[in-house]
Amino acid sequence: MAVFGATGYTGLELLRILVRHPRVDLAVLSSQQYAGKRVSEVYPSLTGRCEQVLEKVNLVRMISRFDLAFTALPHETSMDIVPALLKHGKRVIDLSADFRLRDVQVYRRWYRPHKAAHLLRRAVYGLTEIHREEISQAALVANPGCYPTGAVLGLAPLFAAQLIHGIVIIDSKSGTTGAGRSNAVELSFSEVNENFKAYNVGVHRHAPEIEQELSRVAKKSVAVLFAPHLLPISRGILSTMYLELKRYVGEGRLSKIYREFYHGESFIRILPPGVFPETKEVRGSNDCAIGFRYDAHSRRLVVITAIDNLVKGAAGQAVQNMNLMYGFDETEGLLGAGLVP
Amino acid sequence: MAVFGATGYTGLELLRILVRHPRVDLAVLSSQQYAGKRVSEVYPSLTGRCEQVLEKVNLVRMISRFDLAFTALPHETSMDIVPALLKHGKRVIDLSADFRLRDVQVYRRWYRPHKAAHLLRRAVYGLTEIHREEISQAALVANPGCYPTGAVLGLAPLFAAQLIHGIVIIDSKSGTTGAGRSNAVELSFSEVNENFKAYNVGVHRHAPEIEQELSRVAKKSVAVLFAPHLLPISRGILSTMYLELKRYVGEGRLSKIYREFYHGESFIRILPPGVFPETKEVRGSNDCAIGFRYDAHSRRLVVITAIDNLVKGAAGQAVQNMNLMYGFDETEGLLGAGLVP
Amino acid sequence: MAVFGATGYTGLELLRILVRHPRVDLAVLSSQQYAGKRVSEVYPSLTGRCEQVLEKVNLVRMISRFDLAFTALPHETSMDIVPALLKHGKRVIDLSADFRLRDVQVYRRWYRPHKAAHLLRRAVYGLTEIHREEISQAALVANPGCYPTGAVLGLAPLFAAQLIHGIVIIDSKSGTTGAGRSNAVELSFSEVNENFKAYNVGVHRHAPEIEQELSRVAKKSVAVLFAPHLLPISRGILSTMYLELKRYVGEGRLSKIYREFYHGESFIRILPPGVFPETKEVRGSNDCAIGFRYDAHSRRLVVITAIDNLVKGAAGQAVQNMNLMYGFDETEGLLGAGLVP
Amino acid sequence: MAVFGATGYTGLELLRILVRHPRVDLAVLSSQQYAGKRVSEVYPSLTGRCEQVLEKVNLVRMISRFDLAFTALPHETSMDIVPALLKHGKRVIDLSADFRLRDVQVYRRWYRPHKAAHLLRRAVYGLTEIHREEISQAALVANPGCYPTGAVLGLAPLFAAQLIHGIVIIDSKSGTTGAGRSNAVELSFSEVNENFKAYNVGVHRHAPEIEQELSRVAKKSVAVLFAPHLLPISRGILSTMYLELKRYVGEGRLSKIYREFYHGESFIRILPPGVFPETKEVRGSNDCAIGFRYDAHSRRLVVITAIDNLVKGAAGQAVQNMNLMYGFDETEGLLGAGLVP
Repeated sequence: MAVFGATGYTGLELLRILVRHPRVDLAVLSSQQYAGKRVSEVYPSLTGRCEQVLEKVNLVRMISRFDLAFTALPHETSMDIVPALLKHGKRVIDLSADFRLRDVQVYRRWYRPHKAAHLLRRAVYGLTEIHREEISQAALVANPGCYPTGAVLGLAPLFAAQLIHGIVIIDSKSGTTGAGRSNAVELSFSEVNENFKAYNVGVHRHAPEIEQELSRVAKKSVAVLFAPHLLPISRGILSTMYLELKRYVGEGRLSKIYREFYHGESFIRILPPGVFPETKEVRGSNDCAIGFRYDAHSRRLVVITAIDNLVKGAAGQAVQNMNLMYGFDETEGLLGAGLVP
Repeated sequence: MAVFGATGYTGLELLRILVRHPRVDLAVLSSQQYAGKRVSEVYPSLTGRCEQVLEKVNLVRMISRFDLAFTALPHETSMDIVPALLKHGKRVIDLSADFRLRDVQVYRRWYRPHKAAHLLRRAVYGLTEIHREEISQAALVANPGCYPTGAVLGLAPLFAAQLIHGIVIIDSKSGTTGAGRSNAVELSFSEVNENFKAYNVGVHRHAPEIEQELSRVAKKSVAVLFAPHLLPISRGILSTMYLELKRYVGEGRLSKIYREFYHGESFIRILPPGVFPETKEVRGSNDCAIGFRYDAHSRRLVVITAIDNLVKGAAGQAVQNMNLMYGFDETEGLLGAGLVP
Repeated sequence: MAVFGATGYTGLELLRILVRHPRVDLAVLSSQQYAGKRVSEVYPSLTGRCEQVLEKVNLVRMISRFDLAFTALPHETSMDIVPALLKHGKRVIDLSADFRLRDVQVYRRWYRPHKAAHLLRRAVYGLTEIHREEISQAALVANPGCYPTGAVLGLAPLFAAQLIHGIVIIDSKSGTTGAGRSNAVELSFSEVNENFKAYNVGVHRHAPEIEQELSRVAKKSVAVLFAPHLLPISRGILSTMYLELKRYVGEGRLSKIYREFYHGESFIRILPPGVFPETKEVRGSNDCAIGFRYDAHSRRLVVITAIDNLVKGAAGQAVQNMNLMYGFDETEGLLGAGLVP
Repeated sequence: MAVFGATGYTGLELLRILVRHPRVDLAVLSSQQYAGKRVSEVYPSLTGRCEQVLEKVNLVRMISRFDLAFTALPHETSMDIVPALLKHGKRVIDLSADFRLRDVQVYRRWYRPHKAAHLLRRAVYGLTEIHREEISQAALVANPGCYPTGAVLGLAPLFAAQLIHGIVIIDSKSGTTGAGRSNAVELSFSEVNENFKAYNVGVHRHAPEIEQELSRVAKKSVAVLFAPHLLPISRGILSTMYLELKRYVGEGRLSKIYREFYHGESFIRILPPGVFPETKEVRGSNDCAIGFRYDAHSRRLVVITAIDNLVKGAAGQAVQNMNLMYGFDETEGLLGAGLVP
């Protein structure tokens, strides 16, 4: 197995999970910034768990040592390396945004011109619970964004049941690791601590990704209003979603719809009606907890989901996908309980 | 001046403001728990600023020493003492919820049977920018709840202009001091830190208060869906509000509506369209910052307000009201800049 | 296996570790407050990992279902139940302070009169790296306090080598979970957040425990000045310790002393001279990281240790001891990497 | 008045204080990064309090508009501009480290070669309580570092009384604003939150500054071991100091020594023996709170001081010095109570 970009937060989280995975051999760890160091020097929490030396990317020297690569690289970098990996017959789970959007025009509008547009239709969107079959066969998995994971998992059963009327409001709140390992002043402790704010309301890049996936589930065009906020916590996304139903549906019936849609899923936790999840109950775990309540007064359904953005929202889901691609038990390496308190 | 309940967080914040107020003499400070101590022993930050001794409530002994009382007491306690204060000819600014709801049935439904129902119609709702005239003459001011302050200030101009269609979604996030000085396990550091959650979605007691005030402004019945959340910060409320307009109104026009509605206001800060406030920019100040953006994609208007729940959401607004009642400059004692970072 | 007091933070942490332990069957979970509920209702992070129902303590009904008990109970309660457990032939790992002090007079001075004083000499102090042999044979293990674990592990090699002159200053800083799941106002988020303070300087109950253990290692009476502080974090203890050496010893030699003392230890991490640990690098893991630096200017040696107070400082070390007592691999269930960031 | 470097945290804090100061006119605010913007655009908390436009440094255009300058610039920059300001007859309060050390060799060893060495002996060290007379007459005040302020204020009375034997251990813990407005990854929220660490133990640049000032007070060479730590809070320094006394001195006598030394001081708060300060009780205020306790067991005196690093540790003390220099009441603009909670 290879991890390209092993020293970003997503890369580190992949290592945290994979060092405990009984079937994985970490053969290649790349890092531009820390090449030559052992990864445990960069992240002492890995001492004794992962003593691998970090290497600069050099496919010629690396290529024979792995058959699947996690690419946890910045956006532009990822589309530079993924085509070569596929050409060498490697399977790839890409954790950047480069292969999530299927429409090259949409990608260009929200990001930049794409350099490997021919792969957009080959890539399988890696939301495991929705695209399990395709993922297991895929050469290239586009691992979902953290916000889309929490939002789509909470809404998909309702869209699949054709229950939703009009647009959906998604008020999401994320911890700071969602922005990666960053030296932006706005993400410094002195700025984030004891503060709370919205950002990119209605213009965040994860909005088209959410709409794409909900539209596929709904089999028609879906529009959302996505409003992300920055929480002074390190990990966790809570998405509070407001929707109108086409017709009245009782909470018992809604429960049934959720439970049937996610029947047999190991990482989806449906809470009783009126009970909402907290971010801490999924911190460090691959779970997505879903709560809902119908508010008769306003005739709106409120759905709230909680995930750990680095686990189910990134590295955990990537490992879940890897398990599928190899035919391992889907939960292998992912069953630890979260860290509370 | 008297402060009943001087050692809760609202009481403390009143003292923090009043010790700097050039026209105020703090004659009576009550506290059941700390009676006999100097308030600076309980809160060393007041050392040298307020060395008053705390007393148990004893109206007979206290009554001649003040002419206006702030009652920063728990709900049931407040309605026990306020009638007596009024009977003795005192003016009262009550910071509990006891006199905010004008309909005794509504009060009973959300709280309990009222013991001084005859005062509900006499009390003036103390949202200064909306009820300035009445407040200046009032014997009893019901100081608004923290959530209603932020929500109503953000929405009132739009309701006054009859622009809003349908229900309003109010997704609010509050720091922990909104719950007062509490020994609840759920509010302990180990539980709140690195966590985020919604609570009382659709069933919070501040919802009827918000609807009452917006209905008065709109001159018709208004319904909201109010979803509060608990932030791991000490101070601050950010309310993200989603609304449909009856007809398209450009952002320039909306700006104008806000600026005219709040013309001359010292504590209202209207941000340019598309710019949203952060809680830190109002921390420690009596300001309410208001930002909005029209999202053409979803045809929803997003309005976000930020206040410090202990200042504009409680003690600061109470002092603003006191200034009005005494004919002082409304900003007296309230012009300090917030504490950033 | 039984866990008495399964819903305190130490109990919860025991469960987090034990549900992943391949050799453990959790047969009995007691809780006075939550009896009748499933533990996953109290702590949703355990959903799907531990669905056991909590029971009130009833030895008659429980006693046949386990052979080792973790007692994670408040101090007085523990000494009430441990004698009965031992009488029934159970092995006990007690996580309270009740059996840590060997001298009944010392216990009485710092706590209260002891009700099971005859057990004080039978109990084995459960600092694994120091008392491994005895622990493996013990019927009753007194699991160390969180502060003593970090302090003694950092100092023992130097005292064993008879290098230390005079008293040792131990300036410790702990996260809030060290105080357990508490409803004290002083531990509420609003009080702890954005604050830092010392408490019980020179009079903390862990001081005699530290002195007892260092004296045993040094084979003479050792005195310390112990100054604990409260950090606004949930987990972690950093202890900064200042000492005078009897004679100059180079850092290379000190390194060697540490490495030899802890040769073969799985959970002790000796850092290179001049490198100090951070609490995050041990969060969620059973590691104790030790750094030191000799300051020639002041002729003092500075030793800093970091542990997670709930893992190496409580539940993790308890499981390490359990592994020893059963002859399992000492690291079983304890090798996961910490949660960073 | 001019503030050079108005948009760093120290500059911002100067503005927060000065906008409330009745005698100050803010004529010049410089900022390289934000020149051309109003300062309230950069820091919205200043909206309505300070609407000044920021300018790039241009002495020719600025020089006639002020007679005193606060230079809140990075180290190298400060020594570039201060000589010119003095030459133009301006008085300067410099908040960098450039003029704090009196010995040019010491400066070179800890920083770099000095470009205005001739000013080192002219600069007055701005610890107001110690050098009040000189400050009031000074042309150039070197405002003390944040750590030295807390440490020296706590120790000076004891050194003045010649009570201290041997070296002093200073274990300090600071919030993140002590590092200024920084884009260092190590100061990002994801890195600092839920973490605690020591840094630069024994090799921090504030150590020679502390020793210089204590030596002047003691009238002999003083050595300290200074160990700073990084707290996950925004503001506040708590310094826990350990010392040996030359002879036994009772706590009552120590109290008297402190009270006499600081007789009449407005910003020094001496706590009763055995009571220690918390950082929150000085947050946002210019106070330094001092607590101490003699530990008979270890024969060590423990002294703990708390300051707000941005107020008494920087901008507040600078304004206190300005008041002195102009003959204003020393407390002008500085008497607000801290923000609690």
